[in-house]
Amino acid sequence: MTTKAVQKILANYESDNPGVKANLHRILMQGRLGGTGKLIILPVDQGFEHGPARSFSVNAPAYDPHYHYQMAIDAGLSAYAAPLGMLEAGADKFAGQIPTILKVNSSNSWAGGANQAVTASVDDALRLGCSAIGFTIYPGSDDCFEMMEEIREMRAEAASVGIATVIWSYPRGSNLPKSGELALDVGAYAAHMAALLGAHIIKVKLPSNHIEQADAKKCYEGTDWSAQADRVAHVVQSCFAGRRIVVFSGGAAKGADAVYQDARDIRDGGGNGSIIGRNTFQRPRDEALAMLDKLVKIYKGKE
Amino acid sequence: MTTKAVQKILANYESDNPGVKANLHRILMQGRLGGTGKLIILPVDQGFEHGPARSFSVNAPAYDPHYHYQMAIDAGLSAYAAPLGMLEAGADKFAGQIPTILKVNSSNSWAGGANQAVTASVDDALRLGCSAIGFTIYPGSDDCFEMMEEIREMRAEAASVGIATVIWSYPRGSNLPKSGELALDVGAYAAHMAALLGAHIIKVKLPSNHIEQADAKKCYEGTDWSAQADRVAHVVQSCFAGRRIVVFSGGAAKGADAVYQDARDIRDGGGNGSIIGRNTFQRPRDEALAMLDKLVKIYKGKE
Amino acid sequence: MTTKAVQKILANYESDNPGVKANLHRILMQGRLGGTGKLIILPVDQGFEHGPARSFSVNAPAYDPHYHYQMAIDAGLSAYAAPLGMLEAGADKFAGQIPTILKVNSSNSWAGGANQAVTASVDDALRLGCSAIGFTIYPGSDDCFEMMEEIREMRAEAASVGIATVIWSYPRGSNLPKSGELALDVGAYAAHMAALLGAHIIKVKLPSNHIEQADAKKCYEGTDWSAQADRVAHVVQSCFAGRRIVVFSGGAAKGADAVYQDARDIRDGGGNGSIIGRNTFQRPRDEALAMLDKLVKIYKGKE
Amino acid sequence: MTTKAVQKILANYESDNPGVKANLHRILMQGRLGGTGKLIILPVDQGFEHGPARSFSVNAPAYDPHYHYQMAIDAGLSAYAAPLGMLEAGADKFAGQIPTILKVNSSNSWAGGANQAVTASVDDALRLGCSAIGFTIYPGSDDCFEMMEEIREMRAEAASVGIATVIWSYPRGSNLPKSGELALDVGAYAAHMAALLGAHIIKVKLPSNHIEQADAKKCYEGTDWSAQADRVAHVVQSCFAGRRIVVFSGGAAKGADAVYQDARDIRDGGGNGSIIGRNTFQRPRDEALAMLDKLVKIYKGKE
Amino acid sequence: MTTKAVQKILANYESDNPGVKANLHRILMQGRLGGTGKLIILPVDQGFEHGPARSFSVNAPAYDPHYHYQMAIDAGLSAYAAPLGMLEAGADKFAGQIPTILKVNSSNSWAGGANQAVTASVDDALRLGCSAIGFTIYPGSDDCFEMMEEIREMRAEAASVGIATVIWSYPRGSNLPKSGELALDVGAYAAHMAALLGAHIIKVKLPSNHIEQADAKKCYEGTDWSAQADRVAHVVQSCFAGRRIVVFSGGAAKGADAVYQDARDIRDGGGNGSIIGRNTFQRPRDEALAMLDKLVKIYKGKE
Repeated sequence: MTTKAVQKILANYESDNPGVKANLHRILMQGRLGGTGKLIILPVDQGFEHGPARSFSVNAPAYDPHYHYQMAIDAGLSAYAAPLGMLEAGADKFAGQIPTILKVNSSNSWAGGANQAVTASVDDALRLGCSAIGFTIYPGSDDCFEMMEEIREMRAEAASVGIATVIWSYPRGSNLPKSGELALDVGAYAAHMAALLGAHIIKVKLPSNHIEQADAKKCYEGTDWSAQADRVAHVVQSCFAGRRIVVFSGGAAKGADAVYQDARDIRDGGGNGSIIGRNTFQRPRDEALAMLDKLVKIYKGKE
Repeated sequence: MTTKAVQKILANYESDNPGVKANLHRILMQGRLGGTGKLIILPVDQGFEHGPARSFSVNAPAYDPHYHYQMAIDAGLSAYAAPLGMLEAGADKFAGQIPTILKVNSSNSWAGGANQAVTASVDDALRLGCSAIGFTIYPGSDDCFEMMEEIREMRAEAASVGIATVIWSYPRGSNLPKSGELALDVGAYAAHMAALLGAHIIKVKLPSNHIEQADAKKCYEGTDWSAQADRVAHVVQSCFAGRRIVVFSGGAAKGADAVYQDARDIRDGGGNGSIIGRNTFQRPRDEALAMLDKLVKIYKGKE
Repeated sequence: MTTKAVQKILANYESDNPGVKANLHRILMQGRLGGTGKLIILPVDQGFEHGPARSFSVNAPAYDPHYHYQMAIDAGLSAYAAPLGMLEAGADKFAGQIPTILKVNSSNSWAGGANQAVTASVDDALRLGCSAIGFTIYPGSDDCFEMMEEIREMRAEAASVGIATVIWSYPRGSNLPKSGELALDVGAYAAHMAALLGAHIIKVKLPSNHIEQADAKKCYEGTDWSAQADRVAHVVQSCFAGRRIVVFSGGAAKGADAVYQDARDIRDGGGNGSIIGRNTFQRPRDEALAMLDKLVKIYKGKE
Repeated sequence: MTTKAVQKILANYESDNPGVKANLHRILMQGRLGGTGKLIILPVDQGFEHGPARSFSVNAPAYDPHYHYQMAIDAGLSAYAAPLGMLEAGADKFAGQIPTILKVNSSNSWAGGANQAVTASVDDALRLGCSAIGFTIYPGSDDCFEMMEEIREMRAEAASVGIATVIWSYPRGSNLPKSGELALDVGAYAAHMAALLGAHIIKVKLPSNHIEQADAKKCYEGTDWSAQADRVAHVVQSCFAGRRIVVFSGGAAKGADAVYQDARDIRDGGGNGSIIGRNTFQRPRDEALAMLDKLVKIYKGKE
Repeated sequence: MTTKAVQKILANYESDNPGVKANLHRILMQGRLGGTGKLIILPVDQGFEHGPARSFSVNAPAYDPHYHYQMAIDAGLSAYAAPLGMLEAGADKFAGQIPTILKVNSSNSWAGGANQAVTASVDDALRLGCSAIGFTIYPGSDDCFEMMEEIREMRAEAASVGIATVIWSYPRGSNLPKSGELALDVGAYAAHMAALLGAHIIKVKLPSNHIEQADAKKCYEGTDWSAQADRVAHVVQSCFAGRRIVVFSGGAAKGADAVYQDARDIRDGGGNGSIIGRNTFQRPRDEALAMLDKLVKIYKGKE
């Protein structure tokens, strides 16, 4: 069964084959937000980025890969995203219970520059039954062209076997000042490039109201960008006037109220949902489930 | 049906297979200039190069990829060129209505050096029903050899499946002073290299009457290069004495009269037409249609 | 025949194919520790790393590759690991008598930076009847991404033909101070990355109680890490809460008592065993056999 | 039909397959020198190296690729060599009338360092009916190993489909002082390396009587190298004692008498002929034909 | 027919296929040392390394590739090794008369750093009927990993078609002082690495009694290394306790008595023979034949 909201979204993926659309459909119909056109994704790749202790010591059960599968299922989320080893350790037990996204590139705390290692393949995604691959690009990095060429190849290979592509587009690198990483113009540009690269789902950070690029300033002048929902709307507009699914990441663990307000702004600005990791698994399971329950209600328009 | 003007042009592509010729024919017979041997192409790759706000905020409907397909069709243009995501977002709806050119490499505002990422493939062009691929080279760049080797491979692959190749040849890079990027000798050389690389359609900028290379100065002495039409004629001559299609780009948005004069000079110098992006989509739709109408008439010799 | 201890371990490799599991089973059922879930591996790659004289002159019979095969068999060990040439020189004579691990990358005394050359292939492992390939990564190295991408490809190829993968994860390189190579946080992180990369067996060094990373310090505060068994337990926890086999290396040749104490700590911390090279072959054969006999007993809980 | 002179040359290519020999035969039997064992090749790759104006403005008909095909045919030359686009623009019209050599790598005026881009392929040579590929190496360049590895692969691929290989061996690069580029020892060494790489035809510059390499000086002492014919003989000797075809390039346009004297020296030293570009197409057609007529006569021993 | 001495050697290649063993057998049974387990190889790659004049001007007939084939045959040697062009120029005439080794990588006088270009392939070796490929590695070079990875691939490909591999292991490069290139510890290490890489025949230089590596000094203390035969024995020991064929190179042309003494030391130390180039072809043919005759007798134990 399907819904009009989901069919309307899928209609925008007019050049994609039925295999890719079926996997987008799986994600959009999964869990408690299934059929609404909204989605919440649980990503657990912080072990690669920050190490196991910084990721899991605050909530020791989270060292176990099964913990996250179960959390995503019990909370009624839309999909679960993780690197190769994390998915392999639970892919059989939880087969079919939750759409999975294989994060195919990863960085770590000692990596110089702004790049990631490709640590998994489309074949891995196929044998593990994943619905999508996830790939990070760093606009502003010296290695950005290389990353774009990697995802071009992997995206084409994935689509050819019916697997969707999620691009994490995170501005970062020596060509971009730290101050500009969260700028509105930069975030909208990063989202647009992900769309141009053929991403089926675009993942960006919630932008601030800072404008970074001198050449872009005049395009933003005369508009009030203080409301986060308006900034979300601009990012959505930059993704082909809303023709692509856009989800926003929550960043570091923070207060629950801030998390809820972000979700309301994403919803009100027309974004498709949240991708929320540390704010989930770095809380005790009960607290995390309560928070996710509330987020689901917000996206359903009930909070 | 075909015309003598078009047949004469195609006869120059004597080594190409019928598939490539059929796609060149499609472009040359399309729209209001169909059959004249002249052409106008709409390129929309500025979102990659400059970001979405700098490209589209002045005319918000242009955020939607469908807008540009419809513009190219309604104005009776010859072809529409864009990066992967932009084409994918409309390729099904507008299938067959306008020849498309897949721009397969792209730069962005943070890219160091003078190079581009390869962001699409010949397989993409095939599945999206494109008539040609478009590729930028930067003569004068430290990475020029790499770019030439990339287009050699993609051009060969494209031709093998009947897809034509358009080369954007834009002098730029650390081996070339900024002052020389628009020089006549440099532009003619850039066009010649595109021809040597096997481009079916060559896209260059309108050159100034500056001569940049010390070694080339004596070749240009004694001739008056102040007329733009004469400079166009020299570029055309440099493309195998007119045996290759050459179109000229319009550059940044500017006054309509300047755009018209450029077109008259291209026509009078024997160039094949214009590739005109920002001057189209950064105007309101009505104004853009009026401008394109006038350009068509100029190329038909009526203005 | 099999045992419950081994079946419990294999159950954690839920996404792996029967070929890989059969090879893990072969290793876990081999020798005197067969069936216990514990294992001792003999690695002889020091000839590459340090040269033949530094490795073997103290015990000249060890120049002969047959010596090590025979030692591993006579001592009842679980597997024998060595580079291509060393295995080839005995693979036929000892075929089937001891599971072998082909070390597929190697460094040497003159190598600049922190990297290794790939010196053997999965095809080599197949034709030599190996149960696993072994690969070193250097977290903290400038070349770490490259090494990760190499093992991603080799691991995938190996698994596709039923061969298991052992990752030596040794923190080292210009992004990591010498003082941090043995730090607890660094070692746990290195083990975790090996797990994320899909290692079936993870090989790390026994960590000290130093905490290196500023960002990780608060995760370790408030716990007493002075007991080596506790540190082992933390590394095991960092490998998917014990879902992956972890073995610890013994380092340079040292006193027998220190070797025994390490083994007891590995055992008591829940580690799966030892990989012990120089402490074996740099002793006279009788002494080495006596030491290995005692280590076996320790892992059986008898010492 | 064939001749003893040609059969004697072909006999030296004892390891080559009949396809390659047939193409060498085609070149050696073509035109007015057909059957003599001597040859004159017309190369037109200066458009890539120096740009169109510096190459063709002095004789404007030469902008047209057909001009050069016709010149090579009318003058009764042995072969015509040019880059991809130049050959494509006439390959159909002149099919079979003159053996062609596809120059598969090319430099340009802005290239840093001493290297070339690979701008065509063996497949291109096949579909255009070429008898050989041409490839430049720069002994003395930092990129010389890369160039050698490129031609090793292309030469093998070409030979496997019966296409011969011509190597332009031009000493140049940061490891060689400008003063040494034309030195006798350097030129003989460059020719020898082309032979070792498997070139079927070797193209070098006429060397001066300077000896560049300190280590080589004693090998040349005691011999009078002032006669150009003797220097040619030494280069021929360095190409497997005359077992390989060697042609010499004429360099920049110069006086006709100097061109004729060069040809006599090549002939008298046992060289196989001239490769003469700018001295041909930068003269009016009548003058060029007259010059080529005289060169043919020189190689026939009549002048 | 075969001999016990040869069968004993071949038995050590227990993991190799019959094709490789047959080629080793061909070399070991060839010429006047056939069946003794000793061998003399003629290598002629100095034209690449030093240029033709420095290699051949002292004995001009040696410019002709046929000269060397004939020399190896007439002197009753075991094999002839040369780069691609040199072998091609005689492979047909001398087919089957002498086992050949295709040297597949080569350096030259202008090469910066310590590396070589790969200038031939296994396919070349097959079509030329070669028994082995030859490859140089430079332990101590910045490019050593790259060279090792090249030979790993070529060795595997060669073995898969029954062709043996000879590794020239020559310590050299920026990580190794000039003083250490001939050191005993360094030479033994270099030979050991060649063995670990899977070389079937190892070619090293005769080492001096200098010990270079600080860490290795204590392994050599207390033994008298002043006898060259003892140093040879240590290198042989370092090649898997004599399980691999080791030949020693003669270096620059020198007095005949020194050459003979080297051979006696190689023989007495248990080495398998000499690889002797310049000392052969830089002498008049008669002298060279006389010297080789005496070397054969030495290896037969008659001198």
